[in-house]
Amino acid sequence: MDYSVGKYDVAVVGIGHAGCEAALATARMGLKTVAFAINLDSIALMACNPSIGGPGKGNMVREIDALGGQMAINVDKTFIQVRMLNTKKGPAVRALRAQLDKRAYCAAMKYTVESQENLDIVQEEVVKILVEGEKVKGVVTKTGGVYEARAVILTTGVYLRGRIVIGDLSYSSGPSGLFPANELSKSLESLGLELGRFKTGTPPRIHKDSVDFSKMIIQPGDDVITPFSYTSEKIQREQVPCWLTYTNETTHKIIAENLHRAPLYTGEIKGVGPRYCPSVEMKIVNFKDKKSHQIFIEPEGNGTREMYVQGLSTSLPADVQIAMTHSVKGLENAKIMRFGYAIEYDFVVPTQLKPTLETKAVQGLYMAGQINGTSGYEEAAAQGLIAGINAALKIKEKEPLVLSRSDAYIGVLIDDLVTKGVTEPYRILTSRAEYRLLLRQDNADLRLMDIGHSIGLISDDRYEKFLKKKRLIDDEIKRLKSIKITPTAKVNEVLTGLNTAKLNSPSTLAELLKRPELDYEKLKVLDEDREQLPDDVIEQVEIATAYEGYIERQMSQVAQFKKMENKKIPDDIDYDEIYGLGFEAREKLKEVKPISIGQASRISGVNPSDVTVLLIYLETKRRKSRHE
Amino acid sequence: MDYSVGKYDVAVVGIGHAGCEAALATARMGLKTVAFAINLDSIALMACNPSIGGPGKGNMVREIDALGGQMAINVDKTFIQVRMLNTKKGPAVRALRAQLDKRAYCAAMKYTVESQENLDIVQEEVVKILVEGEKVKGVVTKTGGVYEARAVILTTGVYLRGRIVIGDLSYSSGPSGLFPANELSKSLESLGLELGRFKTGTPPRIHKDSVDFSKMIIQPGDDVITPFSYTSEKIQREQVPCWLTYTNETTHKIIAENLHRAPLYTGEIKGVGPRYCPSVEMKIVNFKDKKSHQIFIEPEGNGTREMYVQGLSTSLPADVQIAMTHSVKGLENAKIMRFGYAIEYDFVVPTQLKPTLETKAVQGLYMAGQINGTSGYEEAAAQGLIAGINAALKIKEKEPLVLSRSDAYIGVLIDDLVTKGVTEPYRILTSRAEYRLLLRQDNADLRLMDIGHSIGLISDDRYEKFLKKKRLIDDEIKRLKSIKITPTAKVNEVLTGLNTAKLNSPSTLAELLKRPELDYEKLKVLDEDREQLPDDVIEQVEIATAYEGYIERQMSQVAQFKKMENKKIPDDIDYDEIYGLGFEAREKLKEVKPISIGQASRISGVNPSDVTVLLIYLETKRRKSRHE
Ligand SMILES: Cc1cc2nc3c(=O)[nH]c(=O)nc-3n(C[C@H](O)[C@H](O)[C@H](O)COP(=O)(O)OP(=O)(O)OC[C@H]3O[C@@H](n4cnc5c(N)ncnc54)[C@H](O)[C@@H]3O)c2cc1C
Ligand SMILES: Cc1cc2nc3c(=O)[nH]c(=O)nc-3n(C[C@H](O)[C@H](O)[C@H](O)COP(=O)(O)OP(=O)(O)OC[C@H]3O[C@@H](n4cnc5c(N)ncnc54)[C@H](O)[C@@H]3O)c2cc1C
Repeated sequence: MDYSVGKYDVAVVGIGHAGCEAALATARMGLKTVAFAINLDSIALMACNPSIGGPGKGNMVREIDALGGQMAINVDKTFIQVRMLNTKKGPAVRALRAQLDKRAYCAAMKYTVESQENLDIVQEEVVKILVEGEKVKGVVTKTGGVYEARAVILTTGVYLRGRIVIGDLSYSSGPSGLFPANELSKSLESLGLELGRFKTGTPPRIHKDSVDFSKMIIQPGDDVITPFSYTSEKIQREQVPCWLTYTNETTHKIIAENLHRAPLYTGEIKGVGPRYCPSVEMKIVNFKDKKSHQIFIEPEGNGTREMYVQGLSTSLPADVQIAMTHSVKGLENAKIMRFGYAIEYDFVVPTQLKPTLETKAVQGLYMAGQINGTSGYEEAAAQGLIAGINAALKIKEKEPLVLSRSDAYIGVLIDDLVTKGVTEPYRILTSRAEYRLLLRQDNADLRLMDIGHSIGLISDDRYEKFLKKKRLIDDEIKRLKSIKITPTAKVNEVLTGLNTAKLNSPSTLAELLKRPELDYEKLKVLDEDREQLPDDVIEQVEIATAYEGYIERQMSQVAQFKKMENKKIPDDIDYDEIYGLGFEAREKLKEVKPISIGQASRISGVNPSDVTVLLIYLETKRRKSRHE
Repeated sequence: MDYSVGKYDVAVVGIGHAGCEAALATARMGLKTVAFAINLDSIALMACNPSIGGPGKGNMVREIDALGGQMAINVDKTFIQVRMLNTKKGPAVRALRAQLDKRAYCAAMKYTVESQENLDIVQEEVVKILVEGEKVKGVVTKTGGVYEARAVILTTGVYLRGRIVIGDLSYSSGPSGLFPANELSKSLESLGLELGRFKTGTPPRIHKDSVDFSKMIIQPGDDVITPFSYTSEKIQREQVPCWLTYTNETTHKIIAENLHRAPLYTGEIKGVGPRYCPSVEMKIVNFKDKKSHQIFIEPEGNGTREMYVQGLSTSLPADVQIAMTHSVKGLENAKIMRFGYAIEYDFVVPTQLKPTLETKAVQGLYMAGQINGTSGYEEAAAQGLIAGINAALKIKEKEPLVLSRSDAYIGVLIDDLVTKGVTEPYRILTSRAEYRLLLRQDNADLRLMDIGHSIGLISDDRYEKFLKKKRLIDDEIKRLKSIKITPTAKVNEVLTGLNTAKLNSPSTLAELLKRPELDYEKLKVLDEDREQLPDDVIEQVEIATAYEGYIERQMSQVAQFKKMENKKIPDDIDYDEIYGLGFEAREKLKEVKPISIGQASRISGVNPSDVTVLLIYLETKRRKSRHE
């Protein structure tokens, strides 16, 4: 029997990485929100590797932070190791990565959502979406509870019709021994939404005391910790190391000899898996010539002896998992505490979404996270935040927030999803971004905090601090450009001492700073009166100066790109009416409903000639309407 | 496909409260042990109230501690409030009770078992018990893993064919949204074991910020904390309060009007529930005249805003749960985060067990905890410890450990189970113990630490400390008995000042200490040269002196009782051969197979006349065999 529980502005289904950000955003934007999870003890559970960040992903975590999201703050509270990757390479590819205490992260996020004003947290399985006409009206739970809502955000992860597979064993299940959600898919199908089926996998967990670390290479954390959140002050914390070892020919032989028992190859698994996070059996099959693959042994937290075996993700039978684990150097006597498994689940084909993450079919119904065919905590959180923001903006009758590919990795991610769709679990990669040098992990605040503040997720206080930082950067760049150094003997002596060429003619400090041999710190001797600036300001000054040329070039590309993004396509366009479009292009355009010429041009199947036809059609229409 | 994993001495199925103690005991006694759980994130999960201890239960926790178990130690690490109950009553009914941080307790116990030498922890569902002839051989897991073992201890809690019921909704499930174990029951039945079906329930959890505490009565922790474990030094910790409120006529009306939807009364629930922990609907039905029942609001931990609503345990439909919760003073706007539910599960009829907790049918197969038809964390832990100890003693070919009813509440518990069986979930109660004054919470170490040390679970170090304490107590009692106070004017002036009668003739300090107006501290003025003794020593001295008469009387009852317990019944007795036994008595004796005349006399259906027949039969036999 159904019963009415109450009226909310927003209902968020799922309190994983996407759901947390979505629910926090709408609640913080003043909307009465309710969020559901099948199990409240696994809020923001990291079902797979206990780490957050890395190339592209780390950038998104900082973008989430700059927009007023939560992930970075809680990562800083609970990490057990932090590393800035690629420090010897350029700033575009530097990436921050943290190992977390898995249980502590869950607990911290649970406490955050519990403590959020305007937000109710309920352990209940949602079984149905209520829709009236083309508008969402609320959700119904398994016990029959009807929660009315003006917007509904689905963030159900891998739970929809989840099925675990280990060798020839398979059973209905969510991740990590939690219940699946077997009913909601039907409700989505009845709304006309197209679902697909993906799979993902996880490696065994082993007992720390059974590992021989003396045979492995230690991977310590950074000496100086870089926090994830722009709000975090300097952090001092004892860090724990990870360990590196390798698979070998014995490992590969064990796997090869058991491929006939691998669900991936027996046909037991039908969902497509993530190419960029493959199972070890897939690696062996696809890279036949590689004699070994990296294996990282990562602690799951401070208060546990479980360790994660990164690189051994698998759905092979349990006996093969034991044998292959024992074949790895240092793991000869490893004791498996949990076996690896694959999980298949339903996702919603993401080309059915607008760039706001609202479904085209049902007004007010949003989707975020793994349900959209992505993989990864950061990808999920990023979408959750954007879906939450847009649900709130819509209810407040404000303009939606669509980040472009030149604004943020989040923009790249969502544009890819809604424009190109997915053929395998989607993961962000730096190679997906056209403007990598602009979308750095170090400048997410400069790129996005204005937006975060204007939508109300960045407090005035925090924004003031940010503006001050920005002012300091701008002023300092200006100052460096304005101070001329004349080539006196003393100056040249200093430069020689710094292993860099002498000056022949006067040069600004900014020009000197461009020299690879020099940095801001070193230039101090030529710039004695300068005031001490904060580290993050200096970092921006250095990058802006040293990469000025590259940055300017990328900015002008962005200007070009924006022109096409700004050519908006009206909602009510009738593609059947446009003469000269290719057949496939027409079908794809009708499906994706791009909001701009820019987006249209990225749809696979839409050729440059189709884009020209579109441009001419829109221009003609514009002129006509002007004449009317 | 089955595969061999390895050989163990002991396999423990389940890592709940019983499983933790069982596995720790066998591993600490030097046996190679493997323990299984369906979900490693819920080790020692308190599925219901976040508290441990209370009358009878608290005594058992201390008994577990004195025998070298873990519960008390981890309680001391993770409590958020401690209270000694009944401090105004006699020492026999004083009881220690702690509120715990639920997640912290889980984490602490997980870390304890993970860190235990000789103990492997595996997340796997056990589906089959391997038996050869009449001997247990090991277990098989869901993935086909065969673990050979010389003893197997089952501690599966409420998971066997678990089924959750909320109103008209019911589904296969373990507790707290965890997976059930649906296969193992079949294996037990095929071994000829008789299973029964019980049910238990839990109340809703609500959000702290939605409670109006100003309408409730605060229940703070004790000013001075009494630790649970004898190993704990003085503990200083900030405590959090609980809150008291009441149901009222509106609450009762709501429930009464919805009884037709209560699974307990619609026939949806067939399992029998716990009489001493009834659901609120049962309280309303069974105590029609009571106008209100107590409701305690208890925090689930420090890092969460969830609160437990003790007293509202229910399987009523969710809408009724909301209405009845809102009817309670202070809960008018309470937000339910998790609904209450009932869970039905299989248990093993415990009269099939020996007092060692080994099954009579299969050698080396032990059962402990809720699987034996009990309810409660402490009851489970106590059985787990005893089953573990006995499995280890058997493998080491040593005498088993059977605590008698005069040794410990644990003895009462197990004797009740194996002798009388259960007709509803069994809970320990002080009224079940004949020798309450002896089985105090304050003297569990004096009663049991010799045993704990002799079986090897109490370290020499710890035992030395204990012996010292014991010596101090004995010496001090002797001293008090030996020191005579003569009735001088000064002495009588002091006594008058202490509001107690003057002396007429000389009296020992011990005699004075018996006076209710006096205590050890007050007597100091008459006993100026005494050395300062530790508090726990003084406590024992006071109790032993003040209650000397009562204690002696109970001791002589115990001596009587022990006579009957010591009249052992041989294993190979043939009850069919004994002339004069009543029909029911004969059947019951054959079923229970009592180990002593004492145990036989407690079997329901065995009358005093049957006991006499038995005694005569055994005596005749004894004489015959002596003559042969
Ligand atoms: C086995 C496994 C391996 C993975 N491997 C990797 C990896 O190697 N690298 C990587 O980056 N990512 C990996 N992932 C992906 C990563 O875990 C997810 O992408 C990420 O957690 C998705 O976040 P989410 O918020 O979309 O969903 P989740 O974090 O899964 O959260 C889903 C939430 O929805 C709730 N829910 C679902 N259905 C309902 C319903 N009907 N009613 C109420 N609540 C509901 C759940 O209770 C949960 O709270 C893996 C995931 C799994 C399960
Ligand atoms: C809803 C509910 C309400 C309750 N209310 C109260 C109350 O009010 N007061 C009270 O004192 N007690 C109450 N209890 C009882 C208390 O929770 C239990 O008595 C106690 O937890 C039992 O401990 P245990 O060790 O026997 O089982 P549990 O603590 O339940 O542990 C069982 C363990 O066995 C594992 N397991 C089960 N089957 C398998 C298998 N086939 N293979 C591998 N592992 C397996 C599980 O994963 C788990 O680790 C309640 C319990 C529940 C569920």
